[in-house]
Amino acid sequence: MTDTFINDDVSNEHVHRLDRRHVFHSWSSQGNLSPLVIAGGKGCRLWDYAGKEYLDFSSQLVNTNIGHQHPKVIAAIQAQAEQLTTIAPAHANLARGEAARRILDRAPSGFGKVFFTNAGADANENAMRMARSVTGRDKILSAYRSYHGNTGSAIVATGDPRRVPNEFARGHAHFFNPFLYRSDFWAGNEEEECQRALQHLKRVIECEGPNAIAAILLESIPGTAGVLIPPRGYLEGVRQLADQYGILVIFDEVMAGFGRTGKWFALEHFGARPDLIVFAKGVNSGYVPAGGVIISDEICRHFDDHMFFGGLTYSGHPLAMASIVATLDAMSDEGIVENADRIGNGPLAAGLQQLARDHAIIGETRGLGVFHALELVSDRNTRTPLPAARMGAIKNALIAKGLLPFVVENRIHVVPPCIVSDAEVAEGLAILDDVLGEFAAG
Amino acid sequence: MTDTFINDDVSNEHVHRLDRRHVFHSWSSQGNLSPLVIAGGKGCRLWDYAGKEYLDFSSQLVNTNIGHQHPKVIAAIQAQAEQLTTIAPAHANLARGEAARRILDRAPSGFGKVFFTNAGADANENAMRMARSVTGRDKILSAYRSYHGNTGSAIVATGDPRRVPNEFARGHAHFFNPFLYRSDFWAGNEEEECQRALQHLKRVIECEGPNAIAAILLESIPGTAGVLIPPRGYLEGVRQLADQYGILVIFDEVMAGFGRTGKWFALEHFGARPDLIVFAKGVNSGYVPAGGVIISDEICRHFDDHMFFGGLTYSGHPLAMASIVATLDAMSDEGIVENADRIGNGPLAAGLQQLARDHAIIGETRGLGVFHALELVSDRNTRTPLPAARMGAIKNALIAKGLLPFVVENRIHVVPPCIVSDAEVAEGLAILDDVLGEFAAG
Repeated sequence: MTDTFINDDVSNEHVHRLDRRHVFHSWSSQGNLSPLVIAGGKGCRLWDYAGKEYLDFSSQLVNTNIGHQHPKVIAAIQAQAEQLTTIAPAHANLARGEAARRILDRAPSGFGKVFFTNAGADANENAMRMARSVTGRDKILSAYRSYHGNTGSAIVATGDPRRVPNEFARGHAHFFNPFLYRSDFWAGNEEEECQRALQHLKRVIECEGPNAIAAILLESIPGTAGVLIPPRGYLEGVRQLADQYGILVIFDEVMAGFGRTGKWFALEHFGARPDLIVFAKGVNSGYVPAGGVIISDEICRHFDDHMFFGGLTYSGHPLAMASIVATLDAMSDEGIVENADRIGNGPLAAGLQQLARDHAIIGETRGLGVFHALELVSDRNTRTPLPAARMGAIKNALIAKGLLPFVVENRIHVVPPCIVSDAEVAEGLAILDDVLGEFAAG
Repeated sequence: MTDTFINDDVSNEHVHRLDRRHVFHSWSSQGNLSPLVIAGGKGCRLWDYAGKEYLDFSSQLVNTNIGHQHPKVIAAIQAQAEQLTTIAPAHANLARGEAARRILDRAPSGFGKVFFTNAGADANENAMRMARSVTGRDKILSAYRSYHGNTGSAIVATGDPRRVPNEFARGHAHFFNPFLYRSDFWAGNEEEECQRALQHLKRVIECEGPNAIAAILLESIPGTAGVLIPPRGYLEGVRQLADQYGILVIFDEVMAGFGRTGKWFALEHFGARPDLIVFAKGVNSGYVPAGGVIISDEICRHFDDHMFFGGLTYSGHPLAMASIVATLDAMSDEGIVENADRIGNGPLAAGLQQLARDHAIIGETRGLGVFHALELVSDRNTRTPLPAARMGAIKNALIAKGLLPFVVENRIHVVPPCIVSDAEVAEGLAILDDVLGEFAAG
């Protein structure tokens, strides 16, 4: 097999042609796509077949927290492949038990078991299913500024506009979540934003009917929606409201979890404990598709003698599990979460703040750890989002200079792997400085 | 990592304990589970840490078509792991293009592109999404005797009772599909069953409103529902009805595809062409989680200039794609589909028919290739399904004798890997003969 397609004769043009001829792409019209060809990678670098290198400030879809091709994770995948790649979920397998144990070791106390899925979307599906089953209630409340995945219920729980053509699930209602820079509550400061967001959520709960609501599902830090750090007290306030009405709380940590914010879980920055934690991405940096739900002791007890009506062929897939074990061990051994904290909340945050001072095109910079967003505006006073065409041009300019960015709407999300070094942060910031300077002038 | 958990000191008891402490299982109440411990496997064999071997007549969840630990697929996974495990779906990657090309080479003519997902459930989700988007219509019709996956819309498209606690999607309606042995149409023979099933489907279409129906989704051979071979003319009749009303047809080949029936796709046994083919499982024997949708040229053209509103982080995951390439190459090179045909439609089918003659507990045997079901009954005349407790006892007896069966309701699905040998078929049949003999007497 190695001979049939991994070889040195392959060109960017060949791979591009093969892709355009046969591969159907996510979230796109297919006619005019021109995907970047990627041949390989290591750490924070990727390269194509012509030897062009990219500094990866996207972590792909904010998943390669441990960087590309970490040797210990690669070795673990290869060893598990040798041993047993796949086994049905009904059986017991060592890699699965070890992966679950390591996840629970890193989770807050009071969580008893892990249910494994293939990714974040089906993890959210199963968390919602558990909440509905435990409470006997119907509705899931979630935030307009959110993304929870592309499957039936996950996409309708999602707030962003990708929900709209996909509204084929029932039992969902949405609320506005806090985001001071573009406040939906006419708030003037963080405290006001927090208090009003909670008052608004309370009103939505009252109007949707507290006894009909199974769970409030929210990203502890909404990611794709713009890295929206919740104001101090918000998540605690959500928990209190939920408790008041017997509603469960699900934190989606698919993007924010496993080191991204400089802690194992983003929820550690806040004082709120959920009933279910949804994860994927960073748990194994996406080296093998995997996700899951971390389940509180109370909910575990419920399902000791109640049927759980969910499941999937690849739940706890051994190859995925081995990659989780190795990823979490390496992240602990090598201080990778601490690195994300030190660099992300140090030189990276400081550098982005400096960029914001230097470039009027940046309306706001915000973030935690290696999880930041630059909000680009055509006018700082009106906060008017930079138009799509300008954003596209900026993205192309960054790529041309060798920086792979994560661009969403009018924002550049600055989300390098958790292993990013001081030198790489300096290099990435310099390219951002260059390009934003050109576009301010242009 | 290898040192931390793959070693020779591990016992069944240790793995069992680790599982019961930390792992939450699919489709179960968790309190009294006692999963079988599996340490490794090769071909049609699995074993535990005590050296007990099992002949795998389940293919796990009917996915390991190529058998366990095929050396070429293992090597391909290891080589791709060395090269690049993961990359975002927006980029172009060689393994992805090569996997798509190989799938299209094996698909019927008239199919242009492949959209990759993580498994069968999200593949069905995206096929339904495409159908709704292309037609601008809302409803999906699917069969009561079916299983399509556990995510939001897939589980509601599912007909079997696992749908009922999960009915949170709208836009779904169900029809009865043909199954002469337990006819829902008071039919006396296959021809009558077929004609009445089509008449019934026509009535459902008329009553649901033809102009509201985006697609008819059905397994070309319903698998979990009991390996229900459609009568001659049924799928062709469905296609004709669909064409009459401008409805698309989606064939779910997640379980039946990629060799299971002795052909690459089960639909090749019939004269009907769908618009979308959904696959997973056999495409890479589940060595890495993967699934997808094979898209007709017409639908590809639609999405050239229309946005596709679906997508996922691990779409076209390089590690999964490399395992698809190697699996399909090995299946071709080694005549694995032909083996499934020769053995499955030869000695396996004949042996099961002999069992049915010898054991009154078997009400019916049916199947194609390595895709068979034994319908167990407490009374051949009334066709009363064997009670759950008896089925559980039979399952345990088979496992005790070293045969891993796939038991659903009152049925034993006889679904070994496509590589199964004559000797293994003889061995499996002998154990079935033994155990069914004991239970006939008991």
